[in-house]
Order: sequence, then structure tokens, then C-alpha cells
Amino acid sequence: MTAATRTETDSFGPIEVPADCYWGAQTQRSIENFPFGSNERMPVEIVHALGFVKQAAARVNAREAGLDAQLAEAIQQAAGEVASGGHDDQFPLVIWQTGSGTQSNMNANEVIAGRANEILTGKRGGKAPVHPNDHVNKGQSSNDSFPTAMHIAAARAVNDRLLPALGTIHHRLAAQADAWDRIVKIGRTHLQDATPLTLGQEFSGYAAQIAAGIDRVKGVLPRLHQLAQGGTAVGTGLNAPKGFGEKFAAEVANLTRLPFTTAPNKFEALATHDTMVELSGVLNVIAVSLSKIANDIRLLGSGPRCGLGELKLPENEPGSSIMPGKVNPTQCESLTMVAAQVMGNHMAVTVGGLQGHMELNVFKPLIGAAVIRSINLLSDGMESFTARCLDGMEPDERRIADLMNKSLMLVTALAPEIGYDNAAAIAKHAHKHGQTLKEAGLELGLVDEATFDRVVIPEHMLGR
Amino acid sequence: MTAATRTETDSFGPIEVPADCYWGAQTQRSIENFPFGSNERMPVEIVHALGFVKQAAARVNAREAGLDAQLAEAIQQAAGEVASGGHDDQFPLVIWQTGSGTQSNMNANEVIAGRANEILTGKRGGKAPVHPNDHVNKGQSSNDSFPTAMHIAAARAVNDRLLPALGTIHHRLAAQADAWDRIVKIGRTHLQDATPLTLGQEFSGYAAQIAAGIDRVKGVLPRLHQLAQGGTAVGTGLNAPKGFGEKFAAEVANLTRLPFTTAPNKFEALATHDTMVELSGVLNVIAVSLSKIANDIRLLGSGPRCGLGELKLPENEPGSSIMPGKVNPTQCESLTMVAAQVMGNHMAVTVGGLQGHMELNVFKPLIGAAVIRSINLLSDGMESFTARCLDGMEPDERRIADLMNKSLMLVTALAPEIGYDNAAAIAKHAHKHGQTLKEAGLELGLVDEATFDRVVIPEHMLGR
Amino acid sequence: MTAATRTETDSFGPIEVPADCYWGAQTQRSIENFPFGSNERMPVEIVHALGFVKQAAARVNAREAGLDAQLAEAIQQAAGEVASGGHDDQFPLVIWQTGSGTQSNMNANEVIAGRANEILTGKRGGKAPVHPNDHVNKGQSSNDSFPTAMHIAAARAVNDRLLPALGTIHHRLAAQADAWDRIVKIGRTHLQDATPLTLGQEFSGYAAQIAAGIDRVKGVLPRLHQLAQGGTAVGTGLNAPKGFGEKFAAEVANLTRLPFTTAPNKFEALATHDTMVELSGVLNVIAVSLSKIANDIRLLGSGPRCGLGELKLPENEPGSSIMPGKVNPTQCESLTMVAAQVMGNHMAVTVGGLQGHMELNVFKPLIGAAVIRSINLLSDGMESFTARCLDGMEPDERRIADLMNKSLMLVTALAPEIGYDNAAAIAKHAHKHGQTLKEAGLELGLVDEATFDRVVIPEHMLGR
Amino acid sequence: MTAATRTETDSFGPIEVPADCYWGAQTQRSIENFPFGSNERMPVEIVHALGFVKQAAARVNAREAGLDAQLAEAIQQAAGEVASGGHDDQFPLVIWQTGSGTQSNMNANEVIAGRANEILTGKRGGKAPVHPNDHVNKGQSSNDSFPTAMHIAAARAVNDRLLPALGTIHHRLAAQADAWDRIVKIGRTHLQDATPLTLGQEFSGYAAQIAAGIDRVKGVLPRLHQLAQGGTAVGTGLNAPKGFGEKFAAEVANLTRLPFTTAPNKFEALATHDTMVELSGVLNVIAVSLSKIANDIRLLGSGPRCGLGELKLPENEPGSSIMPGKVNPTQCESLTMVAAQVMGNHMAVTVGGLQGHMELNVFKPLIGAAVIRSINLLSDGMESFTARCLDGMEPDERRIADLMNKSLMLVTALAPEIGYDNAAAIAKHAHKHGQTLKEAGLELGLVDEATFDRVVIPEHMLGR
Repeated sequence: MTAATRTETDSFGPIEVPADCYWGAQTQRSIENFPFGSNERMPVEIVHALGFVKQAAARVNAREAGLDAQLAEAIQQAAGEVASGGHDDQFPLVIWQTGSGTQSNMNANEVIAGRANEILTGKRGGKAPVHPNDHVNKGQSSNDSFPTAMHIAAARAVNDRLLPALGTIHHRLAAQADAWDRIVKIGRTHLQDATPLTLGQEFSGYAAQIAAGIDRVKGVLPRLHQLAQGGTAVGTGLNAPKGFGEKFAAEVANLTRLPFTTAPNKFEALATHDTMVELSGVLNVIAVSLSKIANDIRLLGSGPRCGLGELKLPENEPGSSIMPGKVNPTQCESLTMVAAQVMGNHMAVTVGGLQGHMELNVFKPLIGAAVIRSINLLSDGMESFTARCLDGMEPDERRIADLMNKSLMLVTALAPEIGYDNAAAIAKHAHKHGQTLKEAGLELGLVDEATFDRVVIPEHMLGR
Repeated sequence: MTAATRTETDSFGPIEVPADCYWGAQTQRSIENFPFGSNERMPVEIVHALGFVKQAAARVNAREAGLDAQLAEAIQQAAGEVASGGHDDQFPLVIWQTGSGTQSNMNANEVIAGRANEILTGKRGGKAPVHPNDHVNKGQSSNDSFPTAMHIAAARAVNDRLLPALGTIHHRLAAQADAWDRIVKIGRTHLQDATPLTLGQEFSGYAAQIAAGIDRVKGVLPRLHQLAQGGTAVGTGLNAPKGFGEKFAAEVANLTRLPFTTAPNKFEALATHDTMVELSGVLNVIAVSLSKIANDIRLLGSGPRCGLGELKLPENEPGSSIMPGKVNPTQCESLTMVAAQVMGNHMAVTVGGLQGHMELNVFKPLIGAAVIRSINLLSDGMESFTARCLDGMEPDERRIADLMNKSLMLVTALAPEIGYDNAAAIAKHAHKHGQTLKEAGLELGLVDEATFDRVVIPEHMLGR
Repeated sequence: MTAATRTETDSFGPIEVPADCYWGAQTQRSIENFPFGSNERMPVEIVHALGFVKQAAARVNAREAGLDAQLAEAIQQAAGEVASGGHDDQFPLVIWQTGSGTQSNMNANEVIAGRANEILTGKRGGKAPVHPNDHVNKGQSSNDSFPTAMHIAAARAVNDRLLPALGTIHHRLAAQADAWDRIVKIGRTHLQDATPLTLGQEFSGYAAQIAAGIDRVKGVLPRLHQLAQGGTAVGTGLNAPKGFGEKFAAEVANLTRLPFTTAPNKFEALATHDTMVELSGVLNVIAVSLSKIANDIRLLGSGPRCGLGELKLPENEPGSSIMPGKVNPTQCESLTMVAAQVMGNHMAVTVGGLQGHMELNVFKPLIGAAVIRSINLLSDGMESFTARCLDGMEPDERRIADLMNKSLMLVTALAPEIGYDNAAAIAKHAHKHGQTLKEAGLELGLVDEATFDRVVIPEHMLGR
Repeated sequence: MTAATRTETDSFGPIEVPADCYWGAQTQRSIENFPFGSNERMPVEIVHALGFVKQAAARVNAREAGLDAQLAEAIQQAAGEVASGGHDDQFPLVIWQTGSGTQSNMNANEVIAGRANEILTGKRGGKAPVHPNDHVNKGQSSNDSFPTAMHIAAARAVNDRLLPALGTIHHRLAAQADAWDRIVKIGRTHLQDATPLTLGQEFSGYAAQIAAGIDRVKGVLPRLHQLAQGGTAVGTGLNAPKGFGEKFAAEVANLTRLPFTTAPNKFEALATHDTMVELSGVLNVIAVSLSKIANDIRLLGSGPRCGLGELKLPENEPGSSIMPGKVNPTQCESLTMVAAQVMGNHMAVTVGGLQGHMELNVFKPLIGAAVIRSINLLSDGMESFTARCLDGMEPDERRIADLMNKSLMLVTALAPEIGYDNAAAIAKHAHKHGQTLKEAGLELGLVDEATFDRVVIPEHMLGR
């Protein structure tokens, strides 16, 4: 920014803004009234969504509400630039502003008006011929525009980032479930040796978690695709033309290629963010799933010589500034840290969601920003984890076989033959005396060799 | 309990149990090993579900796995008694036992064996002719039986308690939305005066929240109806006959009249409780919704003389031990406290859900008990709130009209006529000088009387 | 309860109560107005604390406020009976009542009046000669009595249960830190092999966690010992004699032998429960500490043949209903489940704590009950874990030595001699070729045998 | 960055880095291995703290461990530049890296070596004469350096930002408590009219909350000032000279003017972050306190005509894009959103804190970043709230008096004179018939006029 300024005005009076920026008086006031750090900015995803909101509104307003065609055209062009990320630097406001997101909505109105005026007159900024409130915000309120932008931003992030990342990791895990389906290994329950399964079966469980995660996300989408627009200030739609919400949603659906609809009850859509809390709850489940998967993999990859050592994880970087040659499961660590933050964001969203009052929930920017961050973190985390941990991971088949053959829990196969209590006696005897199961069974006279050899075959204990 | 005892044994050896109880050695050990208070018992809902598990398993075992018909019959009878609550006092174990729920599963096995033996021999307890492991637990492991019981218990609680309670409160709110649809009132956003709406519209938002809550719950049911049974110890199904899971689920569906199915991936079903975390997330959304509704109602009912006073809440009890005549929104308070505990339980479930290891999540009793408690609290809370707060609540129409007519935000209707900035000037002038909007508008010359009277009509500002 | 009833009255009119109970009209109304399950009762710890409140108040009232000596004596006796647990069955109310705890306060007032009347007249119940409000509640409001009871209950639970349990586990861990201080073992960071330490050093970390936990708890006590009593309805102390709070606190200190004082600001003491949130935060830290300790122990005890196997945990019960001979770390599981619930309760307390309005926080019963439950769970959990897991635990010294000697991270000791990069090359070479470090170092020519033997001595790598 | 590169190497081999940057191979690998967005960078506060770590370590190493004086001097200079923010752009790594923070520690080692080499040779980067591991990291491990940096960063943020902001808001609230100590107003409990207090008394409760918050923060500082440095890789201090931790802490204390000490148990200091969880718990309490205060203020400021209207909040900006003239409590909204995020971060920190394994907790960057963000958000939020809401706030004394005089709860003063039940009858009668208390009392014959006028004086009901 240069030091040069121009004067902009709002209902509070005149204020100086940087001469080369597009925004106006209300944006400038918010910059001054909420002095948080620059890394606390409203996520660009929400900024872009506001671009779509203004673009779609201008189309409906031109067609239905007498918005001058030339103004509407300029607004659409400017709003489209915002939607596609062309003016991200014109959105300096932070998350921690008014709880309705009014100032970010006005930021969008002002930038789009300022840019439209430049298109129409060559002069940047101002309120004529395009006025931020009367034209860009026509038929709208922050109270419906901002939650609309929250849903658009979240739905786009889910569709463009989260679902593809879930698909990628699912594809990899399912492929490993197939590839490793003949590698018989010791099962572990309570972290104690249990009956065998295949490594592929183990990974099929991970794949099933992710598949269910995809279903869970998709289950929220019908509600997430419902838009508040058309409710205006309190949900009644005052100052918006009849059917504005429906037509607007159709335009946004057209612009984004996502099946947005108008919310069936606008009072609910302004006063609550239950659907964002619900979405956050699904992100929380995904974080829980990923924690399980990444924790298992770091346990299975523990070693190289003093751990379980069943998996060899890719070596991506030196692991220690003091221990030479050390390699660590860093992608697991990154992913489980991400998961912890997502769980935390879920609590933030819950606390914000429960505190709505009357016609408006005023924790909108918090909720919107936390959900968007969680989606981005999970998406980036899953993609990196898939590419840099799962993709290069290999089973240590010798180690796996060694461990499995030592296990006492193969005795379980004997229980239907000789009874639970006798089988338990064999396992305990073997454990106490450091014997194999067969040695213990024969010594105790509780099983004969032929039976043992017929029954205790790990490959037959896989439920196939 | 009398002081008389009998001796029971397990693989750890003999142990004395009270002579008149049905349980055996492993239950007794757990009593002694986990000395938590009596109010920490495993919820009876899970006990009953274990009854269904054992009943269904006995049917399949008799038909498919050679379980002696007479034993099977006795097991079914005993298990049916457990399922219908006939032996609740025989389940003394606490939540805080082994994380697989093994001891509660063994408690069920032992009580059912002990009761079946009584049916068959007249002698209570013991392991013959019916053995807790070899017969009652046949083809099962705690690792699949206990999560199966968790899902059965949760699904029954959802179907029998939560959905009806949601239906009840929804019905009441929707009726109030209809009944009060002509009562025009001031809207409030940011807790500040805003444009009008009807009281019925406000309540339609609450009804919409609950309706969405019902949809959210129903969205989880397909996954909740999937049962882990058939996976046995690690998910492979070792020692269970082919198709055991499918046949078992069909029997449980038959016994409970709920559409249970067998889980498509048993490894996932034992090692994770993602679906319980998901369900808990939906309960969390409902808690958020109810917080909003109950908070609004206590705000609207605040007074009687120094608050908003738009609603008259029923007076159920004296409100103060020191302030005579005081009446408080106690049902709102009970419900919002319940909501807070449900949110807390959701965190507990999340923390438990994320810590599974390998083939087993060992936070099962915590997760099961917390979800069941949350369902019960929400159901009891909603029913009481509906019956004792919503049902007797009345609008104070005079107060509502008084407030609405004073509001400055009716100026919003003027904005499309005279522009946002002029309308703002009128509102600010009226506020500063204690005038009505019309007085201010005329004084400032920004609107003429005819326009004002034509436009500023609250009844026309409702979006109809 | 028999079916016989007597009539009691309050400002709402007459109501029938069971003839043989001590409580009165307001208790009875609450039973009927909040129909939650019987396992949702107000914790007895809070009931007992209300007994102390009424006992102390009667003393001050007799001395300072003209309460008739004979009535005061009867009140004191009855209140003392409540405080010592003699009337627990007379407190049927649930947590989920009015958010001020008014009904539990009235339950105490009524039972104590009813019992005092019995002492004085032989006739149970009623309001004469002792009146629940005018005499038992004299100079008090629920709004100060109930939070006073919350602090008394929490402080007693901390002093009687939590601190002793922390002391017990700390004593055991510190003793193990000493006892095992010469057992050199492999360290693990990122779950990967790292440089050695002793088992005693590892346990000294656990002991240090608990020691810090004790300090944290003690740090809250000065604020927890501050009592709200004396603030009456809104904090001003209306209707309480001058100095009531101070004299009352002295009496409670005398009765409980704990250093209670009067809260310096009564408005804060009624309207917020920040100190309970703070205490809950400390319980949350303890839960985090215990999770770490119990998780480590189950990892170190994993096996018996396919895990780390460094610790042999006591075998307390059969571990599996299907896998004969299996033994599980059940005390670790119980404790980590307890920890998860405590974390959840902390969120519930936080959500309750943040929603106070004006002169009163009305999430009191929730907050009080959740904190008391968390203290009890942690105390029971730590005591059981110490007695049934730590006490019987033994290191497997042979296994520990085997693992340690195989580790590649002993190479770290070479880094100061030959540089980080050379040491890394040796470790990687050894890992790749399955060699010992010495073999790799000599083969690569990066270290000579004398240097290696002088430097790579695990016992010299312990920082002593 | 230009496209020109230079080659750097680590134990994984050579890698190209931008020619004009100071960092080396390991930083570059981390950039490539953790492709998260640029707004996910490790907080500069932790970067600066790492500067202090390296500066202090160089001093000790030069004095005690034979680090060449010239190298030490260059390291100190470069590290000082990092500490004072001179190289923030050289720290491109994200939070979501390895859980030990090794890569950020290496980033610091490499940048300081690269800058020291520039100082000494004129050539940027490289490993000679100053080597990132052998010299800059001498006597250290990431496992002790990074948690040391976490404590330094948090302690500095607490001292430089949080405590001053708490002091500022406390000072303002205490001043308002004084200034408004004669303004008698209606009290509200359960949001219902209660007995009177002064506005100053109400604000004294807020001030007391903040004062206690300051005490809570100070209570954590002794533990926060304990530094892990000296533990090196696993806590034993391998490769660090004797007494390194003590001397290092003294140097840091000297550099930062804060009373840092060496942690008494290094195993605890590496393997856990209990003290960070504790600090986060205190931040959670502060968030709860601020929620209460800001919520009260927006309730008291609700209106202007249809709310409580007791406070006039400063008008900082236009409040609505559709409702002209609307002004909202935006600072309250910003602050309560901040509080919600802090609560969420507390859950994230808790989840990270509970998952440490053996000798290392690998959720360090998450924990450090979340705590730093919470401190910054609270500090910025409180400062803005104080300056832009509290400072300009005024009571509406007329409105306050009007409401107070209408209240029925002044009847409470009569209870000690005429009994609770009679007083209740008066209040209910007045409420039912829209009378004043005096009218009702006289009509019912329950009080005479002289008594009423003597007793029912709001100014006498303030507990003075």
C-alpha cells in the first residue's frame, strides 16, 4: 500500500482508505476496530464464496428486481473476479470481527462495487454508479449472505478437497488390503497377542473406516447444500423479491456445478448453524478414524530393532538432530496432530453453535473458519500421508511370520475340540515354561499330536 | 445377599460367590478387581442387549452348530429373561472394567448359564450342563458380542426413546409455529432490535431444527444397525460357523423388530467405534439445537417486569428459597444442563474412539455407557421440557405489540424507497432524540408522510 | 415407601408426600417435575455438604441472628445427621433440576426441618416449630448455599480422596523409580529405538508427573476453599447479618477441619464457577498424565510373545471369553477409560461455566456433579491401578537387555567423536545389512575398535 | 525467491535449496514433505524462542564444552538475529511436520549455521566452518530444544502479552466497579428479576474474575519456567556436558529477563506436556470468564428499545448491510468467538497431551502452536474489547432506575419481617393483578404501610 489515500463514507461518516485499494469505509473501520494478526484473516474460501453470492444475486436482481443491466453486468464481472481468487489481497479482515460476518460481507460489497465502478468509470472505489448496499447487496442482508457463503465454501471444500482426499487414501488402503491378503500375521487385542489374521484383513478395516467416512460426509451434503439466501435480515425475506432464494440457489448451483437449493426454513438457517456443527461432527469422526489408522501404522512400524517391526515405513528425512541414522514415522505424526486440531475445532464449533440468540447466531466467522481449516488440514494431511507414508510402505514378511509362529493364542483353535478350560491350561503352561503350545499340550496330556497338527494351522484360522 | 457362598471356578481357579446369585467366577473377580461405586454400573440397556445377543446366538447355534436342543432352549429362556430386565440385579459390574467389556459379557454368560442350569437341574449357577463359555458364548467372543450389544442397546434407545422424544417436541413446536403465526413481534439479531417477524415464524425455526435432528439421527441408523457379531476374537470369525453373523443378525432383527444386519467388515467393527462417535456427534448437534431453543425461551420469558417478557412460562414450583414469589425457567435450565453433559460425553466418546489399537478398541464400556446416558438424558430432558414448559407456555401479546411498535428497525422497509444511507440517518436521528421513526423522517425531510404510512407496516414486513 | 401420605404446603399450595419421609412440598414437586432415572441423583457428597452448610448456619444464626436456641440445637443435630450420611435416602432429587440447585437446597431445608420437628415434637415433617425457609435457610439463599456446598463437597473430595490417591500412586512410582534404577533399557522416541535409559529413569518421569499433579491440585485449593455463603440472593448479602459469611466459613472450617474462608467477592462467587472450571482443568491434566502412564505400561507389557514385553503385568482375571489363557492389561484399560470420561466432564463443566447470566450461573448441579464424579473416578481408578497393576508389576530383565543390546541408536555416543554425519552412515549401513554397529563402523572405516569399545557403553549413556 | 539454487546435503544426500536462503537440506526436505498451506506456519514466537535456545547454548558450549570461540561468537550473533525476528522469512516450515519439532529445530540450526557461515566467510549457507548439528545443536537434541522453545515462547507470550492484557481489562473493570457503585439496579437470577444491587457491584464480580485469572496464570508460571534443555535425546542428557541444563537456563533467564530454571526431571519434560495442558486449562478458564462478561454486557446493552437497555455500548461501525442505523455489540461478539476457539484449542492440546509414548510426546508443534495462538487471541481480544467496548460504555441511569422500581423482588426485604410465605403471597398477588408490591401488601392485609416504607428501600438492600 502506498501512503496515498482517498476518502470513503458510510453512515458513520468519512474515513480515509488507501488510494489503491478497492474497499471502502466499512472495511477500513473493521481493519481499525479488530487489530488481530495478519495470520487471522477470514479464509479465502469464504471470500471466494462471497464472490459467488454477489455474482448470483446480481443475475437474479437484473432479471427479477430491476437492477440496471449495465450495473448488473459490471457487478457480475467484479464478483466473478473475487470468486476466482483475483482479489484475495483486497480482503484484509480477520475472523474475529462481528459475529454475523457483516464486515466481510461489506468488504465483498465494497470491493465489488469499487471494482465495478472502475470497470464502468475508470475510477476505483466509491459508491456510484454502483453502490455497495443498494446494488451489490440488493435483496440481501449479511445475515443471509454470510451463512450462504459459509455453506458454499464448506460444500466446495468438501467436494473439491475432502472427498478426493478421502477417495485417494481409501483407494490406497483398499489396494493394500488386496495386495497383502495372504500375509498371515499375529492379531493383537488389548495390545496382547491374539489369534491370527492377514495383513490385508487388517488393512481392510482401515479401508472400511474411510469408506464409511465418505458415506458420512455425503450424508451431510443435502443439508449443507441448503442456502440461507432469501431470508435477509431475520428470515422473513424483507426487501428481497418473491422467490429470490430459489432463483439465487439455482444460479449458484449453475456457477459452482454443485446441487445447491434454498433452505426450507430461513429462520433456522440464520439463527443456527446446526448443519455446520453436524459437518464438524463428521470431520471429528474422520479425525478419529485417521488417528486409529496412523497410530496402528506407527506401532506396526516401530523399531527398527526394539519394536514390533511388521511394517517398513518410507524414510523421508533424517529423524533426529542428535541420534544419527534415526528415521521416524513423521507422516503419522503430522496426521495425528492434524486430527487433534480437528477435534479441537469441533469443540470450538460446538461452543459457537450452541450460543445463538433469537434470530441470529453471531459466531458465524468462527464456525466458518474453523470448519474450513479442518477440511483443509484433513485433506492436506490425508494426501501427504497417502503419498509419503502409505505409498512407500512395505511389510517385513519375515518378521511378521516369526512373531506369528511364536504366539500362544493359536490355542484358541483347540477350544472347540478340547474345551475352553483345557485350552487355557495349555496356554498358561506354555507361557510359564517357555514352551511351544504343542509341547505344553502333549506334556499335559490334554491334546494328542494328530489333533494338534490338524487343528492348529494359522492359515485355517482366518475365517475363510 | 446372604453371607452363604458357593464355589465357582474359572481358568484362574476357584472363588467364592454369594450362594443366591446366578453369576460365576469371572463376574466375582471383576467385582473385586474394579471397586468403583455402585452408581457406576454398566447401564441396564447394555445388559438387556447382551440378553438378546445370547438368545439369538443360542438359536443359531442350535440350528447350525450342533448346540444340544435342550441346552439351547434353557439358554434362550434365561437369555430372554435377561433381555426383558428380569435379572438386572445380577449385573453388578461397573463401566470401568476391562476395555473390551469382556467381564460384562462373561457376567451375561455366567448368569445365563447359572439360570439355565437352574432351569435344567434345579440348582443355581455352575458350568454344567450349560457352560458359560462353551455353550452360552458359543461361536462368540467378547470382542464381537460386546460391540454388538453396544449397537443393539444404542439402536433400541434411539428408536424407543430418542426418536419419540424428538417427535414429541417437534410436534409441539410445529403446533406453536402454526398457532402463533399472526403474532407480529420484534426480531432480534445480535440481541439488538431488528425487523419484525411473527412468533410463529420464530418457532418454525425451532421446529425445523428438531426436524433436521430427526433426519440426522435416521442418517446414522443404517450404520448403527450393523452388528459386529460373527467376527469373534479379531474379526476373522474363528470358531464361528460360516454365515453366523448373517443368521445372528436376522435373529436379533426378529427379536427386537429393528432392521439389524451384519457388519460388512468385522475388522472395522471390532477395532473401531466410529459409528458410535458419529452417533455421539449427532447427539451433540441435538444438544446444540436444544441449547438454542431453551436459551431463547428463557430470554423471551425473562422478567416478569425487568426482562423481555414476551413469553409467560408455566410456573411449576417456587423459585427461590429467599425471594418469595419468584418463578424460574427451571425446565430450560434442566435441559441446557443436560445438553452440556451430552457435549461433554461426546468429547469422552471421541477420546475413547481415537485410541483403538490394532484389532480392538478397548474403550468399549466407556463409549457404550456415555452414548446410552446421553440418549437417556436428551430423551428425558426433551419430554419433560415439552410437557412442563412448552405445553403451558403463552405469549404475552400486549407486551409483544408494545415492544414491536417502538422499534427503530422498521426503518429497513424504507431503504428500498429512499436508499440505505437516508434510512440510516432517520434511525440514528430518532434514536438520538427519542423520536418515532416518522417524526424523525419528516423532521429530516427524508420521507413524506404518505410514503412512510404506505411502507412502514410491520405486517407487510413478514415476507409473505 | 408406603402408600400412606401426609400433606405438606409451600407457596404453590398443598401437596401429598409419603408419610414416612422427612421432605416437604418443594422436594415433592421437584420429584414430579424432573422425572429422570434414579441413577441421575444429586451426588451424596453435595448432600453431605449441604448438611454442613445448615449446621454451620444454625450455629451462626443462634449466636448472631436471634435464632431460638432450642430450634437451633435441633437444626444442628438434624443437619449433622445429614452431613454424616444418615439421611441419604431422603435426597431423591436428580442433578437435572433447576440450575441454581434451589430444589436440592430446599430438600436439605425440608429434611432438616422435618427431622428437627421430629426431634422437638415427635412428629415428622412440617414447618413448625422449625420452618425450612425461615429457620433452616435463615440468612441464606440457594444462590449462596448451593455453590457453598459445591465448594465444600469438592474440597472434601479433593482432600479425602484425590490427594491420598495421588499420594499412593506417586509413592509407588517413586519406589519403582528407585528400585529399577540400574536396569538399563532401550529408550524409545517416536516409538522408534533411541538411546538408552534406565527403567527407573522412565518411571521417575511418571512419578514427576504425579508430583506436579499434586502441586497443581494444591494450587487450586486456596480458591476452592473460598465460600459463597453470605451473598444470599444476588451477592449483596440481603437478609444475612453483617459478617455472616466470615463467621459461617469459620464454623465450616471447624466442622470439616479444612481451611475454608469467605469468598472476597460474592458477586463472582454466585454468578460464576470459574474455580470449579479451574479445578476441572487440573483434573483434566491428571487424566492426561494417567493416560500417558497407563498407555506406556500397556505398551511395555504388550506380548507375551509378539509385543515389547519389557514389563510383566499382574494377571488378575481371565482375559478372553474365546481365547483361552489370555491375560490383558485391564487396569490400564479401566484407568484410561476413566481418564476419557474426566476429559469429557471437563468439557461439560466448561460449557456450563461459560453460560452464566448476570447475577447467577444456573449450571450449578451439572458442574458440581461432574466435578465430584471426576474426582471419584480418578481416585478409585488410581487406587485400583496402583494396587492391582503397579504393585504386582515386574520387569522382564532378560527381555529388556536383549532389546537394548540390539539397538542401533547406541551410535549416538559416537557422534561427538566422529561427527553426526559419519555416525549416521554407520547406523544406516548396519540397518541395511543387518549388522551390529561395530561391524558396520569397522567395515566403513569410520571408527576403530578401541574407540568403539571405549565409547559405546550403554551404562555410560545414562547422564550420570 | 529466485530460481537460482545451491546444493546442501544431509545424511539423506544432496538437495537443491534456493540460493538466497539461509536454510539447508533438512528444512528443504520438510518443505517438500509437508505441503500444507502457508497460513499453517510454525508460529514466529516459537522461532524466536529457538533463537534464544541456540544463543544460550552457544554461550554455554563456548564456556564449558570447548566450542571454538569464534564459531560461538558467530552463532550467538546469528541466533540473536533469529531471536529478535530478523529472519522470520527463513522459517517456512509448517506446524504439521514431525511431532518432535525436529524439522523446526533443524531449520533453526541450519539458518543460524548458514548465517554464521556468512558472517565468518561471506558465503551464505553450508555446514562449514559452522555445522548445524555439530556446532549449533551441540549438546542438544530436538527432543529437549523444541520443548524448551515451547516453554520460552509460551512464557514470553504470557508475560509480554497475556498478563498485560489481563491487567488492562482488570484495571478498567475495577474502575467501573468504583465509578458505578451508587447506581442501584435490578438484580437478575435465572434471567428473572431478583433483589437489587449496584452496577458497580455487578462489575466488581467481573473484575474479581479477571483478578483470579491473573492469579491462575501466575500459578502456572513456576512450572512453565522449567526448561527441558539438558535432557537431549531421551532425558538422560547423553552428549551434553554435566550441568548443561542449569547453565543454559541461567543464560536464557539472562537473555529474556524471565526466571527460567532447569526442569527437575528431564524424562517428564520430554515425554509429556502436562504443563502446557495445564496452561491451556487456565486459558480455558479465562475464556470462560470472558464469555460471561461479554455475554452479560451484550445482554445489558440489548435494545435500543426492545431489550434490557441498561448499558449504552460505543458505536464503532455500521451494524447491518440491510438495516440502516443498526449498531451491534461487535466487540462482545469478537471476544466470545475468540473464547470459543480457545476452548477448542484446549481440547486439541488435551488430545495431543494424552498421546505421548515412552520417552517422547510427538504432538509438540500442535501443542505449542495452539497454546501460542490462544494466548495471542485472548490478548488481542481483551485489548480490543477494553479499548473499544468497555472504555466507551455508559450506563443508562434512567432506564436502570425505571426497571428497578418496577421489580417485585423487592418483596424479599419483607420476608424477615412477615415470613417467607406471606411475602410470597404479596408478590404473586401483585404479579397477577399488575399492582405494585405496596398495593398488593395492603390489599392482602399482610403488611402495614409504615412497615413497608421502612423496609422496602432498594438502597438498603445492598448489603452495606
